[in-house]
Amino acid sequence: MADKKKLIVNLFEMNCVSHISHGLWVLPGNNRHRFNDIDYWIELAQLLEQGGFDGIFLADVVGAYDVFRGGPETALREGLQIPNNDPMLVIPAMAAVTKHLGFGVTFSTTYEPPFSFARRMSTLDHLTKGRIGWNVVTSYLPNAARNFGLDGEMPKATRYERADEYLDVLYKLWEGSWDDDAVIADRENRVYTDPDKVRYIHHEGEHFTVAGPHLSQPSVQRTPVIYQATGSPEGIEFAGRHAEVVFTGGRTVEDFQKNAQDMRDAAIRQGRQGDDIRFIVQAGVVVGRTDAEVAEKLTAYQENTSIDGILAHGSLPFDLTAYPAGTTIAEVIADFGPHPMLNSMKPEATVEQVLAQIAGGREGRFFVAGTPTEVADTIESWLDDDGIDGINLRQYHSFETARDFIELVVPELRKRGRMREAYPEGETLRERLFGEGNARLPERHVAARYRGGANLDVPLEPIRYR
Amino acid sequence: MADKKKLIVNLFEMNCVSHISHGLWVLPGNNRHRFNDIDYWIELAQLLEQGGFDGIFLADVVGAYDVFRGGPETALREGLQIPNNDPMLVIPAMAAVTKHLGFGVTFSTTYEPPFSFARRMSTLDHLTKGRIGWNVVTSYLPNAARNFGLDGEMPKATRYERADEYLDVLYKLWEGSWDDDAVIADRENRVYTDPDKVRYIHHEGEHFTVAGPHLSQPSVQRTPVIYQATGSPEGIEFAGRHAEVVFTGGRTVEDFQKNAQDMRDAAIRQGRQGDDIRFIVQAGVVVGRTDAEVAEKLTAYQENTSIDGILAHGSLPFDLTAYPAGTTIAEVIADFGPHPMLNSMKPEATVEQVLAQIAGGREGRFFVAGTPTEVADTIESWLDDDGIDGINLRQYHSFETARDFIELVVPELRKRGRMREAYPEGETLRERLFGEGNARLPERHVAARYRGGANLDVPLEPIRYR
Repeated sequence: MADKKKLIVNLFEMNCVSHISHGLWVLPGNNRHRFNDIDYWIELAQLLEQGGFDGIFLADVVGAYDVFRGGPETALREGLQIPNNDPMLVIPAMAAVTKHLGFGVTFSTTYEPPFSFARRMSTLDHLTKGRIGWNVVTSYLPNAARNFGLDGEMPKATRYERADEYLDVLYKLWEGSWDDDAVIADRENRVYTDPDKVRYIHHEGEHFTVAGPHLSQPSVQRTPVIYQATGSPEGIEFAGRHAEVVFTGGRTVEDFQKNAQDMRDAAIRQGRQGDDIRFIVQAGVVVGRTDAEVAEKLTAYQENTSIDGILAHGSLPFDLTAYPAGTTIAEVIADFGPHPMLNSMKPEATVEQVLAQIAGGREGRFFVAGTPTEVADTIESWLDDDGIDGINLRQYHSFETARDFIELVVPELRKRGRMREAYPEGETLRERLFGEGNARLPERHVAARYRGGANLDVPLEPIRYR
Repeated sequence: MADKKKLIVNLFEMNCVSHISHGLWVLPGNNRHRFNDIDYWIELAQLLEQGGFDGIFLADVVGAYDVFRGGPETALREGLQIPNNDPMLVIPAMAAVTKHLGFGVTFSTTYEPPFSFARRMSTLDHLTKGRIGWNVVTSYLPNAARNFGLDGEMPKATRYERADEYLDVLYKLWEGSWDDDAVIADRENRVYTDPDKVRYIHHEGEHFTVAGPHLSQPSVQRTPVIYQATGSPEGIEFAGRHAEVVFTGGRTVEDFQKNAQDMRDAAIRQGRQGDDIRFIVQAGVVVGRTDAEVAEKLTAYQENTSIDGILAHGSLPFDLTAYPAGTTIAEVIADFGPHPMLNSMKPEATVEQVLAQIAGGREGRFFVAGTPTEVADTIESWLDDDGIDGINLRQYHSFETARDFIELVVPELRKRGRMREAYPEGETLRERLFGEGNARLPERHVAARYRGGANLDVPLEPIRYR
């Protein structure tokens, strides 16, 4: 009998107070206000590793949400992703106290040079002994662009074209610049590196010019595991070429499955295989020992959810909370003018109806509230019926959400063969996702074309989005 | 009786094999080849804190030394600062296992945007609870420039002008963007930050345009302790405005004292006080229980020192090792052409004489080899006669150099009142250098002009170097 498909379990985190569960930082015992403290990350990492989590996935933004109500005031009040700290820098602290937990970190290809980022990721891969992944983003906040000398956001297609070349530079540095046997550390002959096995990359592209050589020697995984969060047409083409794990979603089974299939098809167009990509979804899990406990938690989360936080996070240029109760969307449009988001709402709906829907309706398909067996049943259905490979667990309460999952859901999933009993020694993050012996990218991934210094002067066909 | 002047003791480190003591990585028991391993940094940090060190000072380069012999081959063979890893990322691992050790990290203002660097330093200041310092550099390797899209190095004056504006941006973010009482974390009223106490910086300068607000909330020190390694005319003006600790040197007492006085004068021209700057020197200390032990170590270091490493580190465009023994400098000039370095040598000297001098002559005034009392006598003379404030201890052997200093020299310095017996609880790095209550920059430092959001629209007079 074939093994049952195992669930990839990541905790979805961000180095800030209010990441995605807006308003809930005020709950008693919630530790989110401790994000500045190194002990927050140390305790969390130890908890997750004790509980058998595969990884922690760190989101990031490099600007403030300042569109809603024309300024950053709402985001500040809510602790909505501001203040926030750099996500990479908490990883070494967590790596110092763990041996198995994986780390996925978000970094944007739009604003910072590839050369120094390449070294940072190699450093993290060395320090974690191969437990690092990179969530590739191109950034979308207008304020982020203005923090890096631009007047506003670059068009999406431009951002993706830059990103494609950015990764090309990184692959040359990570895969092509140093051979595996370059470092010999030969004390007797006083040679640390064999210079014949290291080379410049001399990248000269449309957006970047980078000489090399890469500064770091080859790390366990070389290229970190490539994550991507997407669902857009540009994102799908990009994921087909680059991504190993796609963080995506969908309102229905069909939505998710079409999305995943589109990416598998894109991967095959790039000479890869459909199952070279793992699909993870953001999941909300509220679990309790009894129905009453479930209901109590759910009520606490719902009652404390901040609509202001959600609206500001959505960067809506209009403010539905500013209209008196009973105002219809048609009246809002008459006042504010047409907007795609408003146009998609029923004109006869009142603002309070729409707000109630926004507050309650974000959970979508990948949400479950129940006892351990109910939760496990639902997760098994996500694995077998929807076809997901794993989840980014949304944290309503830090660390109660993680602790509940570990105490109540993990044993149930293990009993059903959906999670392993223990971590194998020395397993890299890529091996965790793709099996033993797969610490490096497969030969059919585009990054492999530079191995041994091949193709450094043969331009890679850029993906064109326009 | 006034307290005797205490010695500031930093270990001088770099995230690579061969930092400054070239060739010595091959010594038995030397751990330098373990720099990729997180345990190297954890063990080192614990050792230094047990031994009462004030800090660890991390050097960095973002390119290869590829001028000597026309390529990076010598540097690669020697492990000379390549491979190297990012220095910032080892700090959280060390912070996770220490409570008092300070961290000085090198970062260049020339190639990466100030906005993301500001957040990285605030993150480190949060994670270390106020133990972070920044060694400001502008970079000098031609290969570094080519790794960041430039054809070659910017002229020095341009680099310093950029650096001055870079720090201006950082001060606005670190000191001016958030008030001390902005974060209220008021659970009852569901307000994390008071939006009236946070502001954009709207910096628009010659080199940078940055909107803000800063993403991190105020950290313990806000601005990290500003270190600078310099002695050049541009560097002195820059240090007068910005630096709190200057890492400098000199071949004689008079050299060092003139250097330090020039910087004190420059500080006073900037409205600061002469003693707002601490002066540290790179020091070589070889200590043994007996004269024989000292001699044995010294011989091991001298015999294993790599001339190739020194020459490649010096980025010399000519190669004295390529000429037959007996060739004079005059003959080298006739062959290679004139060069300032060659022109400064005696024309009648032979290449082997010059090479012997280069190999043996780098230690200069701040070097001592002896028993613990001899070493302590010399260090006291540096403090009282030269007027230094502290040392960056050069590591010949990792971790033997640090361990020897801790076991043999620290007890002697403590006996003489030159080092403290213990760390005060919760002391920040800036307080360690400038006394209790000085966690933040003094009001007379230029960064303070932005406090409370003042002067954000009043341009700071740039330092002009041309």
